[in-house]
Amino acid sequence: MAALSVDLNCDCGEGFGLYAMGDDAAMLDIVTSASVACGFHAGDPDVMAATFESARQKGVAVGAHPGYPDLKGFGRRPQQFSLAEIERIIAYQIGAAQALAALVGHRLSYVKVHGALSNLAMAEKSVARAIAHAVRSVDAGLGFLAVAGTELEAAGRAEGLFVAREIYADRAYTDQGLLVPRSAPGAVLEDASEIAERVLAMVVEGAIVAQSGKRISVGVDSICVHGDHKGAVAAAAAVRARLTAAGVALAPFMQR
Amino acid sequence: MAALSVDLNCDCGEGFGLYAMGDDAAMLDIVTSASVACGFHAGDPDVMAATFESARQKGVAVGAHPGYPDLKGFGRRPQQFSLAEIERIIAYQIGAAQALAALVGHRLSYVKVHGALSNLAMAEKSVARAIAHAVRSVDAGLGFLAVAGTELEAAGRAEGLFVAREIYADRAYTDQGLLVPRSAPGAVLEDASEIAERVLAMVVEGAIVAQSGKRISVGVDSICVHGDHKGAVAAAAAVRARLTAAGVALAPFMQR
Amino acid sequence: MAALSVDLNCDCGEGFGLYAMGDDAAMLDIVTSASVACGFHAGDPDVMAATFESARQKGVAVGAHPGYPDLKGFGRRPQQFSLAEIERIIAYQIGAAQALAALVGHRLSYVKVHGALSNLAMAEKSVARAIAHAVRSVDAGLGFLAVAGTELEAAGRAEGLFVAREIYADRAYTDQGLLVPRSAPGAVLEDASEIAERVLAMVVEGAIVAQSGKRISVGVDSICVHGDHKGAVAAAAAVRARLTAAGVALAPFMQR
Amino acid sequence: MAALSVDLNCDCGEGFGLYAMGDDAAMLDIVTSASVACGFHAGDPDVMAATFESARQKGVAVGAHPGYPDLKGFGRRPQQFSLAEIERIIAYQIGAAQALAALVGHRLSYVKVHGALSNLAMAEKSVARAIAHAVRSVDAGLGFLAVAGTELEAAGRAEGLFVAREIYADRAYTDQGLLVPRSAPGAVLEDASEIAERVLAMVVEGAIVAQSGKRISVGVDSICVHGDHKGAVAAAAAVRARLTAAGVALAPFMQR
Repeated sequence: MAALSVDLNCDCGEGFGLYAMGDDAAMLDIVTSASVACGFHAGDPDVMAATFESARQKGVAVGAHPGYPDLKGFGRRPQQFSLAEIERIIAYQIGAAQALAALVGHRLSYVKVHGALSNLAMAEKSVARAIAHAVRSVDAGLGFLAVAGTELEAAGRAEGLFVAREIYADRAYTDQGLLVPRSAPGAVLEDASEIAERVLAMVVEGAIVAQSGKRISVGVDSICVHGDHKGAVAAAAAVRARLTAAGVALAPFMQR
Repeated sequence: MAALSVDLNCDCGEGFGLYAMGDDAAMLDIVTSASVACGFHAGDPDVMAATFESARQKGVAVGAHPGYPDLKGFGRRPQQFSLAEIERIIAYQIGAAQALAALVGHRLSYVKVHGALSNLAMAEKSVARAIAHAVRSVDAGLGFLAVAGTELEAAGRAEGLFVAREIYADRAYTDQGLLVPRSAPGAVLEDASEIAERVLAMVVEGAIVAQSGKRISVGVDSICVHGDHKGAVAAAAAVRARLTAAGVALAPFMQR
Repeated sequence: MAALSVDLNCDCGEGFGLYAMGDDAAMLDIVTSASVACGFHAGDPDVMAATFESARQKGVAVGAHPGYPDLKGFGRRPQQFSLAEIERIIAYQIGAAQALAALVGHRLSYVKVHGALSNLAMAEKSVARAIAHAVRSVDAGLGFLAVAGTELEAAGRAEGLFVAREIYADRAYTDQGLLVPRSAPGAVLEDASEIAERVLAMVVEGAIVAQSGKRISVGVDSICVHGDHKGAVAAAAAVRARLTAAGVALAPFMQR
Repeated sequence: MAALSVDLNCDCGEGFGLYAMGDDAAMLDIVTSASVACGFHAGDPDVMAATFESARQKGVAVGAHPGYPDLKGFGRRPQQFSLAEIERIIAYQIGAAQALAALVGHRLSYVKVHGALSNLAMAEKSVARAIAHAVRSVDAGLGFLAVAGTELEAAGRAEGLFVAREIYADRAYTDQGLLVPRSAPGAVLEDASEIAERVLAMVVEGAIVAQSGKRISVGVDSICVHGDHKGAVAAAAAVRARLTAAGVALAPFMQR
């Protein structure tokens, strides 16, 4: 088990102007990779620069976290975009993130899609391919952080990208390995130590642990923790502590 | 004179959604470099991609044309931004433009600042330096297209960028080599052949020809023609034809 | 036939900042009612004020033309909004339009919904009711311009609003009285005199004239002409001339 | 002293989408008037509707709080707008607020300008007049909440509006009755009981109490408390409690 290593990622830089969202300062002390909003569904050039700067100082790897251009809906509302339009908004946001990371002396490692666009891409092959194609077109050396077992993972591989598979620390899974919808009972885990134990089990077993207890074998390269709700920081800290105590190393899934 | 070569640049990609601005199709047949709006004062990811694609097909070099985030005012209204904020909006837009150019198989050659931010930077050394510093931080290989004889030119050199100096084809100059304000009589030249003759004189003599007839020696690497008003395309075509007839070669100031 | 009177309406004020859309000056010389964009899918406070001012000077009645908050998509992309959210964006835009009309000494007469939201409301009773309810809540004296025979017409009546039914001058109709989709052949009529003759027939007969020649009896209170494409002004002028020649009076469907 | 009555106002509805700002629920239990952001520098139709609804339920009077269209800068950055443009953005926002108040069964009582536009208008007569003129044009029955002793107060009177003069509960004043700039030491009072005592003194004496202790006689119709920083709710509650304990009645400066 000593050889086990996993990445811990969270969404960051989701403020806008004077509006704050989440506790980035605390989360950047915990995670190994930060997925930074790019100004479309959240974030702005100042928030992005500050987030990249802070991540650089703390040795946290950074990714672009592009979403739909929908600040009002935080990128969580489905939009009617063609595949070509999706490629362009993805490319635009990646480029912007690369430039701001460079401005503060950091370097973008990877891309992880946000919100409603991510939900769509997990299930729709053509959308997943459009996204992965945009990533490769902009910079074939970028990693691709994808929910394990989805069309996004497949698309990343098909485009030849370095793919990392993530699981959610605080979301319940069905026996099919899908997320239990937020509206269902028990969909979101709230007890920090329960969350930490389940994450450890999934990392050690290389499997999703479903609500029923069933194991679904997947590779687990990264754990997604959230920082934008009450108790999130405590849960993330518990995950980190539990993994470390069990001898699992924490490191960015990709260094560059 | 056969050895003389000059670049012909115009602003492009200034539409937004269904809104059109200028006749890009016609201008891209005339110019050798196109400065493409980046979605802040004009342009959007779709317009940018289409513009880069068209430029690539026509062999036209492309630059990022970043401005203030002010679609309503087309980037022409002064804004109160700190130097750090200016660096970030410049970096953001350059990165976005690089990525969209890459998406369609083109490559960004240079940066030229737009509108009120450009006006400010021509006169304010600290602003010009912030802009040039942002360009260098994002990609030190990018060219820097600056109005000849301004703080922008100086800042580009100070940051070690490849600097090209531009003059305006259709704007009158004072004896100090500054633009006559638009509100003054004769500020904007409208006669296509007069414009073309003056441009030829400036290129051949390596000097700004002021309203008074006075010559101000500057290097002339590029000529800026406009495409967003009546008669603009005809004037640009006349400039191209006159230069060609006089044996002046037309080529991008920078190829990459 | 001398007693016949009909309204001629078009969409106006669809520019934004420096971006122009349509030939409002020409259209306001032809129509009797102008539906003015409210700053969400098109228009801005300056364009709105200028449009209301021009309409006032020319004796043209004005309505609010609210749409989805989607400048990039011109309000033509479906959005996922709850009924409550729809009520609020409708109310917001109506109020803004009333205030700007008042600022220039005009008075808002009516409301007509735009684009994708209108398409949805024509078919979805709950959406149509939400819209009509918002109109009544803001000002029960406002008229409601609805596509004849749709859920919008029914909702306006159910809410007790003064309802005017409109037909499209240049769009082909199915035998069910619905618009032939734009993608189908012959969906958009382009010949000005054909358009004018068909409009006259529909007004005189009080019926939609379908592509097949079939008549569908509906009340016709207003004719919608467009100003945002080539030939639109000519077609609108032809409609006006044909109706006038046939003795049909042209007047706003509602005066206040 | 039993006859003394004063209004307690705060800015509300400054969230946007998922972004929160201030503790509106707590503040609406304390104040008698709420100035609601209108979607330009803060707020959106959903936040506005929810704020008006909550204020109605709690018997709190509501005003429009219009500002520059600058969500990124929260309306605190100076903008270069003409007087005509200022009139239009003011009118637009007032109308939108009236409509949303009406939608939820409340009624807009007054207007108070926000941020950088307010700062400008306090000192610039022409700007103050443009704003007051816009208010009167939209609805001459609206009240005008103005910082005591400024051009805004004078402009409101010149336009014949019902004017209420406000003082700031937590800001230090110069001997000239102006706000001590935020950058100066002691500019913002933080001790709740000190704030409450000073407010009581100002209300009872009908005078601004300057940092030096000097009294500047002004009418005091309303006290502005803030809800968007730490300790703000406690300070507002202390002001309310102190005034009530001293027998000062708290009531909206204007009822309609």
